[in-house]
Amino acid sequence: MYEGVVQDLIDELGHLPGVGPKSAQRIAFHILQSDPVDVRRLVLALNEVVEKVRFCVVCGNVSADEKCRICADARRDGTVLCVVEESKDVVAIEKTREFRGRYHVLGGAISPIEGVGPDDLRVKELVTRLASGEVTEIILATDPNLEGEATATYLARLLKPMGLKVTRLASGLPVGGDLEYADELTLGRAFEGRRLLDV
Amino acid sequence: MYEGVVQDLIDELGHLPGVGPKSAQRIAFHILQSDPVDVRRLVLALNEVVEKVRFCVVCGNVSADEKCRICADARRDGTVLCVVEESKDVVAIEKTREFRGRYHVLGGAISPIEGVGPDDLRVKELVTRLASGEVTEIILATDPNLEGEATATYLARLLKPMGLKVTRLASGLPVGGDLEYADELTLGRAFEGRRLLDV
Repeated sequence: MYEGVVQDLIDELGHLPGVGPKSAQRIAFHILQSDPVDVRRLVLALNEVVEKVRFCVVCGNVSADEKCRICADARRDGTVLCVVEESKDVVAIEKTREFRGRYHVLGGAISPIEGVGPDDLRVKELVTRLASGEVTEIILATDPNLEGEATATYLARLLKPMGLKVTRLASGLPVGGDLEYADELTLGRAFEGRRLLDV
Repeated sequence: MYEGVVQDLIDELGHLPGVGPKSAQRIAFHILQSDPVDVRRLVLALNEVVEKVRFCVVCGNVSADEKCRICADARRDGTVLCVVEESKDVVAIEKTREFRGRYHVLGGAISPIEGVGPDDLRVKELVTRLASGEVTEIILATDPNLEGEATATYLARLLKPMGLKVTRLASGLPVGGDLEYADELTLGRAFEGRRLLDV
């Protein structure tokens, strides 16, 4: 429909997650009408990410160096290890400022449907990391969905015999939410995990 | 929050239209985990657009050559000229297969609020194009909003004295839509433009 190179760009943009054909068209026309300097900055950022970003040799988080900033930070508590699926989960948890321990990024979750088993995740690296004996608590912070729960259960069974305290993030009502809009599963979990109020 | 280059990419992606911070983060992580070959294809498409795409010297549409495909096509009817705001409007009209004439892309619409006047649009080029006398009908296909209507009114006043037939696309109910969900303005226009049914 468009002249070749414009259509090529629309096609490439359409492959990005969350970008449909209409958005791809809008972005392509925005780029067409942009200052070439701005487009070159985007191109540079893309190239830099492809060339420079690697994964931390310790935790598997995205990193510009061999060790990520968190693993390189000596002030972080090495006795508590938080296991997450993806690097973006690290960012989400860091934003809460609640956690001062270290992380381990699995690189996904166990999903028989998608053919992802424990061997496709950084589980072996996790076990190796625990060998030093520094870690005393493992917080399983995989997603609260089918795959995340399966992964947490698998890891709990694997790690418990090692004498570690294994915990899971609480499920329950989102803060600021409305009880009547909570789905049954969440509301059920909120009952299950109810706390005694000390007043 | 992220390692430098990843954050740079998130920032650059966030400048694109319709891409919020969450989408930018999702796209950036998708790119991080993509095959570098795919990312290079996107980078190539961006570079190609910046380097190769120009605007047709006749109609102002995006083009890979001096003249766009429509202006270069001798089979198109040169007596009817459809005036649109943007190149994407050309694509939308071409998809209907209803129009076999030629186009003129203004590059926007008159908008006093945004400081866009007739001199900022390709109005002078339009008048020059009409000098040959080949065009007999002008279809004003600017958007059916405030700016588009103002632009159409301005052009109609400018072109009528030249002895041209000046028409405007019909406003009315969208086909396949529900009458009860139509806004008052659209419904009012639909009444105004009602047609006699010859049955």
